[in-house]
Amino acid sequence: MFTPPRTRSANVLDEDQCWAALESTGLGRLAVRAGEDIDLYPVNFLVSHRLLYFRSAPGTKMVELTRAPRVAFEADGSSDGLRWSVTVKGVAQRLGFDSEIEASGIRELRSLEPSDKWNYVRITPHGISGRRFASAE
Amino acid sequence: MFTPPRTRSANVLDEDQCWAALESTGLGRLAVRAGEDIDLYPVNFLVSHRLLYFRSAPGTKMVELTRAPRVAFEADGSSDGLRWSVTVKGVAQRLGFDSEIEASGIRELRSLEPSDKWNYVRITPHGISGRRFASAE
Repeated sequence: MFTPPRTRSANVLDEDQCWAALESTGLGRLAVRAGEDIDLYPVNFLVSHRLLYFRSAPGTKMVELTRAPRVAFEADGSSDGLRWSVTVKGVAQRLGFDSEIEASGIRELRSLEPSDKWNYVRITPHGISGRRFASAE
Repeated sequence: MFTPPRTRSANVLDEDQCWAALESTGLGRLAVRAGEDIDLYPVNFLVSHRLLYFRSAPGTKMVELTRAPRVAFEADGSSDGLRWSVTVKGVAQRLGFDSEIEASGIRELRSLEPSDKWNYVRITPHGISGRRFASAE
């Protein structure tokens, strides 16, 4: 039976552990400001050189990202009987150059919807944090 | 092999399906405004009478919720070979009365951290949406 660690500090992931955790999964959630509200979208993503990439169809999400590029991103998973969760804060930017898009590897990424997706977005992080915890799930 | 549905509309969950999906899991993510930024927290939650409940230690999250109670909440999972994701927008409010806390069933909920948690929070939704999709995960 799993015994939760007794101290909170023991559950904090360092930066390398955060990136390793993010690289172990492909599904995250993107939080974007929409006026006084927040929108929260599941996205398939990939990590390359400590930047995050995802694709998006033209639409509400892209409009919001353009208006409010300061976003939060979260991914979580399970490892060794504990959940982990990593949150990134950063700035989202649509990739404008084919060379950037090719270099990122984002073309290989499967999108969540069967529509054509011609926006490629990069999140440049300015903060990353993560932890492990026991989950009811 | 999984064949993605061909139309986007086929993937939209109706309101009853959204609630059923939320009730099938116990882990979600709460997005809260923090000035110009957004914070994103994993939380164990429960659903009762189409309201969401979670517990929180006193700290940054509670301060943010008090300042900016309009939140977004997301949970996802897998079913029949597809991922589902449900997003709720609503207003978070700390429960102030023991009778409310008892009626919600929230005392039974396991929290993500081993600290004592004496804040009980309810999200009253004003919007819910959900969909199914193929995931790279």
